[in-house]
Amino acid sequence: MAMPAQHRQAIVRAAVALFRKKGFAATGLAEILERSGAPKGSLYHYFPGGKAELGEAAVRQAGATVTHTLSRLRDEAPGAAELIRRYVDLLAMWMKKSNWRDGCPIVTTLLETAHDLAPVAAAGREALADWAEVLAAALGSEGVDPARARRLARFAISALEGALVQAKVERDEAALLEARDELAALMADTVRAAKP
Amino acid sequence: MAMPAQHRQAIVRAAVALFRKKGFAATGLAEILERSGAPKGSLYHYFPGGKAELGEAAVRQAGATVTHTLSRLRDEAPGAAELIRRYVDLLAMWMKKSNWRDGCPIVTTLLETAHDLAPVAAAGREALADWAEVLAAALGSEGVDPARARRLARFAISALEGALVQAKVERDEAALLEARDELAALMADTVRAAKP
Repeated sequence: MAMPAQHRQAIVRAAVALFRKKGFAATGLAEILERSGAPKGSLYHYFPGGKAELGEAAVRQAGATVTHTLSRLRDEAPGAAELIRRYVDLLAMWMKKSNWRDGCPIVTTLLETAHDLAPVAAAGREALADWAEVLAAALGSEGVDPARARRLARFAISALEGALVQAKVERDEAALLEARDELAALMADTVRAAKP
Repeated sequence: MAMPAQHRQAIVRAAVALFRKKGFAATGLAEILERSGAPKGSLYHYFPGGKAELGEAAVRQAGATVTHTLSRLRDEAPGAAELIRRYVDLLAMWMKKSNWRDGCPIVTTLLETAHDLAPVAAAGREALADWAEVLAAALGSEGVDPARARRLARFAISALEGALVQAKVERDEAALLEARDELAALMADTVRAAKP
């Protein structure tokens, strides 16, 4: 079975989009295949483990996309506080544009499956760790002690995950902007305190 | 049809437990009925709107339980920072006890349904607002300006929601304890700054 690798990619992309919008359990494999435009048979060719394997690939792919965005912002922003500001402004814009349907691309799948599908949970852990690492590195390059940087970075991930939930439920960006301002202030204070 | 009201309560309790553990879409009505011990027919007697109506009732019930716990802690704790400490310690204990299966009792259902089931989203908005109100009142009684108290309270809810997600995915309480310490420090600082 020689199938172009782009079919695999199209299937994963479709899975990411549908899991994000509807959740893992509510999304059918037929729906994913249809949205992907890949030929019948390619789904089980690339994902013999079925939906669980696709869940893992989707979390991994979506996690990498977020890491890439954060890393790009880190290169552009003059510091951790501004990185957070720019990232949350993007999140708020994306949420609004999706009419408050989207949100974190992995959280719904993770909450639904983390306990029962160990490979999906592992992909989620790696994604969360990668995101925190980008934020921690930004704080570290401003002189914040590594352990403190890591804790604050992980706290920021928690706050942003929760703010995305609130924004979705409230159909309003307020929770995101509040989290943005609190986190940016906390990071600026931490950087200031770290200055020799 | 005269049916004891306790059947309704048993059905809602079963729905809360299953939606929390497995998610909304993955939970079947038959499973809820079986767990509740209520007689066949009582589910559609009390919830003619089916699963959507049950989702709303479950979010409302679980939201009220959290509000009750927070209010009790608020009465007992000597201030907002200590209220957060005690509440997060409870969350960490419950998560561990459930072998990292439980988590926020409403977030999975909300993420799955908020966009499509307006009554469930409305119940979620009320729950989030009630929780924030308890925290804001605790800050307010320590002299924090109402607008600042409300923002910080909502930020705390975001951080705790996200920390619960991380704790579940990581099967570890670290994210909760980090959020606890950051939030308690932030609240203590805010209260200190508000002192005349």
